[in-house]
Amino acid sequence: MKAVLLLSGGLDSATVLAMARAEGREVHALSVDYGQRHRAELDASRRVAAALGAASHRIIPLDLRTIGGSALTDDAIAVPETPTSGIPVTYVPARNTLMLALALGHAEVVGASEIYIGVNAVDYSGYPDCRPEFIAAFERLAQLATRVGVEGQAIAVRAPIIEMSKGQIIQAGTALGVDYGLTVSCYQATADGLACGRCDSCRLRRQGFADAGVPDPTRYLR
Amino acid sequence: MKAVLLLSGGLDSATVLAMARAEGREVHALSVDYGQRHRAELDASRRVAAALGAASHRIIPLDLRTIGGSALTDDAIAVPETPTSGIPVTYVPARNTLMLALALGHAEVVGASEIYIGVNAVDYSGYPDCRPEFIAAFERLAQLATRVGVEGQAIAVRAPIIEMSKGQIIQAGTALGVDYGLTVSCYQATADGLACGRCDSCRLRRQGFADAGVPDPTRYLR
Repeated sequence: MKAVLLLSGGLDSATVLAMARAEGREVHALSVDYGQRHRAELDASRRVAAALGAASHRIIPLDLRTIGGSALTDDAIAVPETPTSGIPVTYVPARNTLMLALALGHAEVVGASEIYIGVNAVDYSGYPDCRPEFIAAFERLAQLATRVGVEGQAIAVRAPIIEMSKGQIIQAGTALGVDYGLTVSCYQATADGLACGRCDSCRLRRQGFADAGVPDPTRYLR
Repeated sequence: MKAVLLLSGGLDSATVLAMARAEGREVHALSVDYGQRHRAELDASRRVAAALGAASHRIIPLDLRTIGGSALTDDAIAVPETPTSGIPVTYVPARNTLMLALALGHAEVVGASEIYIGVNAVDYSGYPDCRPEFIAAFERLAQLATRVGVEGQAIAVRAPIIEMSKGQIIQAGTALGVDYGLTVSCYQATADGLACGRCDSCRLRRQGFADAGVPDPTRYLR
């Protein structure tokens, strides 16, 4: 069965790719170059797609700097290095809606009936579009939005790690043979993939390896 | 009140812009350069935004040729010049889902509580994402997908011409002073905006002016 998978180059989507492959899916991976500061993520997505056996991998350019409004795409907003309350400035407006819409279009073209996405509601730092009710609403939309949906074929949106802790995700991926040394999570990684060790994403990742009892292969600057 | 409006450069979205302005909205227009063959549409969108008083106008590059699958974005698929049954090859996979997702992100950034879109279910030629139930599903998604939605502010999706015939749209726009000579509908318009006169879109447009009893300002090749 064919599936489209949103691949960021981070730890979560790499784990989801390993899960989809373990379930026997022919996975067509899609990454989005949305002008993110952490360009090393896109390089990581290429390594992960190859290592975990994606059938294809495309990188779609979508420059969200035209829209602005996030520390991840707007150079005028700094990435915070201390925990914040509420929805953080690293939230990218409508990002997962956009990502899923691109995946939906690609699913129609390649004839896939599933979309995999590595969103997580536990460590989601308050992002509204990482919650189960958002995923369910998109699945309903997908049915109405597409040629195949209108013709009666369901398009399912799979978010298999949405209720897992970072430690559980790392344990699951490790059991499936994921090499997390290939992945990059840091919001401000250097061009050669060194992690800052201080942003929200680095903190969650480091704690996750500790919780999982798995050695952390990440190369941190500090 | 602020609104984001999806502006294609065609007849329908120009009419919707005139309607939103007549309702007193501060309109932030958004066009998407998705690699459409009919580049003259984007030039038209600039003229229409200026003529009808949009507060801002942005063109976001989103090259859907990476996805393919439509005569409008894939050079390998010809634009049909005779009527077809079912969903036509000019359907762009997930196009309106993508457009609305971009509009949603922009609405969050500019602080708009409404999104206007010129979809039409009467002359929609079988596109699934031009139906009222699709628009309603996206409105539900928008509430769950966004920071403002989570914080309790509704984001409304307005599709004021969705149930109107092309003739009714042209009558309404003419009453509001829209100069349809600025707009381009043809799927394969020439660079300087000449319409082929033969594609689905030209046929609907020509018939619409006839039905409305309004002189057709379109420059047709034949």
